Amino acid sequence: MREVNRQWRLAAYPKGLPRESDWTLTEAPVPVPGAGQMLVRASYLDVAPYMRGRISPQTNYAAGVAVGEVMVGGAVGEVLASNCPQFDAGDLVVTEFDFGWQDYALLTPAQVRRVDTALAPAHCWLDLLGLNGVTAYFGLAQAEMRPGDSVVISAAAGSVGQLAGQIAKIGGCRVIAITSSEAKLARCRELGYDDGIAYRIEPDLAAAVKRVCPRGVDVFFDNTAGPIHDAVVQNLALNARVTLCGTVSLAARFGEADIGPRFLRQIMIARARVQGFLVFDYAPRYDEARARLAAWYGDGRIRLHYDIADGLASQPRAFLRLLGSENLGKQLVRNDAPAGA
Amino acid sequence: MREVNRQWRLAAYPKGLPRESDWTLTEAPVPVPGAGQMLVRASYLDVAPYMRGRISPQTNYAAGVAVGEVMVGGAVGEVLASNCPQFDAGDLVVTEFDFGWQDYALLTPAQVRRVDTALAPAHCWLDLLGLNGVTAYFGLAQAEMRPGDSVVISAAAGSVGQLAGQIAKIGGCRVIAITSSEAKLARCRELGYDDGIAYRIEPDLAAAVKRVCPRGVDVFFDNTAGPIHDAVVQNLALNARVTLCGTVSLAARFGEADIGPRFLRQIMIARARVQGFLVFDYAPRYDEARARLAAWYGDGRIRLHYDIADGLASQPRAFLRLLGSENLGKQLVRNDAPAGA
Repeated sequence: MREVNRQWRLAAYPKGLPRESDWTLTEAPVPVPGAGQMLVRASYLDVAPYMRGRISPQTNYAAGVAVGEVMVGGAVGEVLASNCPQFDAGDLVVTEFDFGWQDYALLTPAQVRRVDTALAPAHCWLDLLGLNGVTAYFGLAQAEMRPGDSVVISAAAGSVGQLAGQIAKIGGCRVIAITSSEAKLARCRELGYDDGIAYRIEPDLAAAVKRVCPRGVDVFFDNTAGPIHDAVVQNLALNARVTLCGTVSLAARFGEADIGPRFLRQIMIARARVQGFLVFDYAPRYDEARARLAAWYGDGRIRLHYDIADGLASQPRAFLRLLGSENLGKQLVRNDAPAGA
Repeated sequence: MREVNRQWRLAAYPKGLPRESDWTLTEAPVPVPGAGQMLVRASYLDVAPYMRGRISPQTNYAAGVAVGEVMVGGAVGEVLASNCPQFDAGDLVVTEFDFGWQDYALLTPAQVRRVDTALAPAHCWLDLLGLNGVTAYFGLAQAEMRPGDSVVISAAAGSVGQLAGQIAKIGGCRVIAITSSEAKLARCRELGYDDGIAYRIEPDLAAAVKRVCPRGVDVFFDNTAGPIHDAVVQNLALNARVTLCGTVSLAARFGEADIGPRFLRQIMIARARVQGFLVFDYAPRYDEARARLAAWYGDGRIRLHYDIADGLASQPRAFLRLLGSENLGKQLVRNDAPAGA
């Protein structure tokens, strides 16, 4: 019988790179669903870079987590009890942000989507059919990717990157991975990337980009900012398009000024376009993208790597692995809480 | 009788900010037009920021001037002798780049446009109906300026800026000048700018932009890069568009790295678009813009300030004044060479 709901609460706003001690594992009773609510047990908990932005006192897209609150996060889970006509016990649902780092959550129908494992297995609903998939799809669309473009993707083996790389291949592009290690680069090649750079072993990143894109970069899907961004921007082709999708490499100095070389003159001369991207702006078109992503997955044209940690206790550690770029594939946590009586 | 053609030749590539000694005034015989050529005497010589980019060994849009060559530049001039059926002695013509800093030049019909003083006086053909006009027009078009936008223009009193500000007003925008001094800001207000900043007297530029654009900047027409760019980018409204048109504030450190704060995260969060601009990309549409500019000038909806130096001897000094932001209005040089026999 389940009795305890373990919850990771924010203990302090991190200074620089977060540490495990920035969260505390607490226990609460398993909640009881009220009218219109359902009790959901997490099957897979999400681990994602956006979470860094939610634990800063800085202005951001969304309200942050206050110290003492349950840490924000999404999950795929099973309905254990339902007071909603739309869902029954045994149904699988997914929520992008409203689960929290905990075993059980009360959710309403408006907070979830139904998981259909005929389209893709449960754990795929946090990336392929979650926000990562639509991020990759619309991030490339915003950059007006065209067949024949040289497309560079940073954090190429990550949850968005591995999808973007494969979508760009489907779109007839030459696709270049930038990732941390040779192990990850090998994974990228398995997924169909044409070439790539393991940045930790390159003494001169800008020269490495020039080596793999001698005619310049047409599209840059930037998940990192920082030195990787700098290296690519020095190699933009005429009329290049850059999608600024994430800034994970700035995580260590979140809230501090990012001082370094600026390339406005290069951007001007290339008539390049550098554009911020937020997937929520494309929400009215998610269904279009998800139908295509599910079909490509079903055809085997998209394959995915996962890095799944075991047990809710590992949640902060899994998040720190992600920030440290140590994960191989989409990082998730498989829950170990009891499933029922 | 004209016998001597004075010519400013590049003496050395400038290190940092150019100095007068980087050019030497030499004399040559007045050339004699061959078949298909005409001899043109400069009436007004152009002085423009792009010239800085042509005297650097760096890669740039266009071929640079070699040491020893006549300095590049445009002019409005009078045809003194013509071996072309299209033009006769007494006609006025304009060339954007092919005159050079000299009294007389040989030109072909392909290098010039005919000046029609019924549309605007001769000196207006180097800005209003030259490249500055189409730069202002298409730079705002690229930024998808819309009525009601808050539009910030740097180098607002300059040759492109004073045109962009008035076009943005015609387009129903709230228009904000950023310029160096209070004297220039007063000129901008005369031209219809709604508000502005004299950056030399502001202790905190980002705060000053926030003061004049409390709801953020929708369009930034950037002629300067540098600290002004930094201040505006920290105040971008959601979905802001930035046109990178010029980098005159980097002139002192041309070819060196531009080190400073980067704002990728702010650009991402605002979903802003930062885009390089080169007017030549719009060449097929110049006539569309010039017809409108001439009509607005004719209606008095566009007025222009000029800062006209006297005599070819003042050409390098006039260019240095421009780089030092000392000119009030479009900088030109009125030629003092003899007009005829």
